[in-house]
Amino acid sequence: MTASHSPFARKLGAFVALSDRELIALDGLHTRRKVFPSGRDMIHEGQTNHSAYIVASGWASSYKILSDGSRQIVDFQIPGDFLGLRSVLCRTADHNIEPVTTLEASEVLASDLLDTFTDMPRVATAVLWAASRDEAMVVEHLVGVGRRDAKVRIVHFLLELKSRLKLVGMATSAGYDCPLSQNLVADALGLSTVHVNRVLRELREDGLLTFRHGHVEIHDLDGLIAMSNFDRTYLDEEGPMLI
Amino acid sequence: MTASHSPFARKLGAFVALSDRELIALDGLHTRRKVFPSGRDMIHEGQTNHSAYIVASGWASSYKILSDGSRQIVDFQIPGDFLGLRSVLCRTADHNIEPVTTLEASEVLASDLLDTFTDMPRVATAVLWAASRDEAMVVEHLVGVGRRDAKVRIVHFLLELKSRLKLVGMATSAGYDCPLSQNLVADALGLSTVHVNRVLRELREDGLLTFRHGHVEIHDLDGLIAMSNFDRTYLDEEGPMLI
Repeated sequence: MTASHSPFARKLGAFVALSDRELIALDGLHTRRKVFPSGRDMIHEGQTNHSAYIVASGWASSYKILSDGSRQIVDFQIPGDFLGLRSVLCRTADHNIEPVTTLEASEVLASDLLDTFTDMPRVATAVLWAASRDEAMVVEHLVGVGRRDAKVRIVHFLLELKSRLKLVGMATSAGYDCPLSQNLVADALGLSTVHVNRVLRELREDGLLTFRHGHVEIHDLDGLIAMSNFDRTYLDEEGPMLI
Repeated sequence: MTASHSPFARKLGAFVALSDRELIALDGLHTRRKVFPSGRDMIHEGQTNHSAYIVASGWASSYKILSDGSRQIVDFQIPGDFLGLRSVLCRTADHNIEPVTTLEASEVLASDLLDTFTDMPRVATAVLWAASRDEAMVVEHLVGVGRRDAKVRIVHFLLELKSRLKLVGMATSAGYDCPLSQNLVADALGLSTVHVNRVLRELREDGLLTFRHGHVEIHDLDGLIAMSNFDRTYLDEEGPMLI
């Protein structure tokens, strides 16, 4: 697989129709490939002088630990996503990043990004779009934790993952592989593991979806969209805006 | 006041030491100045083909209305901030924006941004930094609503505003003008207005701060930072990273 067909290129290609020259520039961001084991922090809060990464394969979680020891998972990262971009730009990491599975990622220095933007301003716009989309997801996450009930929150979360994975060719409308434990889902959504377990059983009994053994199977997409009021426009899936 | 001394230039200047040429390019983003009255949406959720704006003076709030009619304020915008940048890049507005006071702002089209990035790649990096900082604030906001008690949440919020306003020359360590009603603060922090009122009275009686008549007066900054565990590194105030 060349970088021009990488999940990152597929994702940016959803916003900017990339030229051959731009695809080659993206190749240049994929030279320093590293592998990280699951369950050990790659980046920790307060760290400075670290790199950003683009995920090639595997899943990661970003989270914060509060002074009372409680954990808030901010988001999960999948192939094509940046890890730690915000922290590189803001110098000091404001959160921890831990691989959920074995993770393969390309190291990107702030100077690489600046060089790429200098050569390819359309790539800068595409990266800004990707960052804006990440912010839109955190906003939805805030609204979920602040205002949505547990069932709607879980369905919204699983539909959002489906849309994100579909963009990089890792999901269909029928479902997707998902390595997240119920414990991780609970800590992302501000719920208890018992509560997540009960809601997933209800969704299965209602014939809406089954999340079991690392796989989400969608039985009734329209039903899920209707009950969660899921509006995927914030994920912006209508094809390239910049031609 | 020229744009080169605009709040926007001051803010980007915190990340990139801007050259004269870059300051002139920022001037180019300030040609279409508009005034919006308070209390009426400038941008509403689901709207397409709208512009983004850079705030010159005044305050705005961005918020979402849920299907049950409840409101979640996502953030407030102050001079130097973008309004609706994410929505322009993602085509469809995913939230509403309403001026809190009379608001003066410069209209910015997506094509203006792309043109500026093409001429000035360092400006692209600075705008990406500003977007990343906004995301960091939404993350803190998520952590606050998910995990912090009411008093810590309110103090954190008021200290964050102080840091943001200071960056654009509108606050000192002694305090700042703040046009937000207790009702707006409550809807941003997921609290009741009665609760916000009670906490503000406690903070005043404890000799920590007074928020009254549109002004926040800080009596004991160290005490506030200690009790809220406020860590301003996520606001990245150490001076330009790109020289």
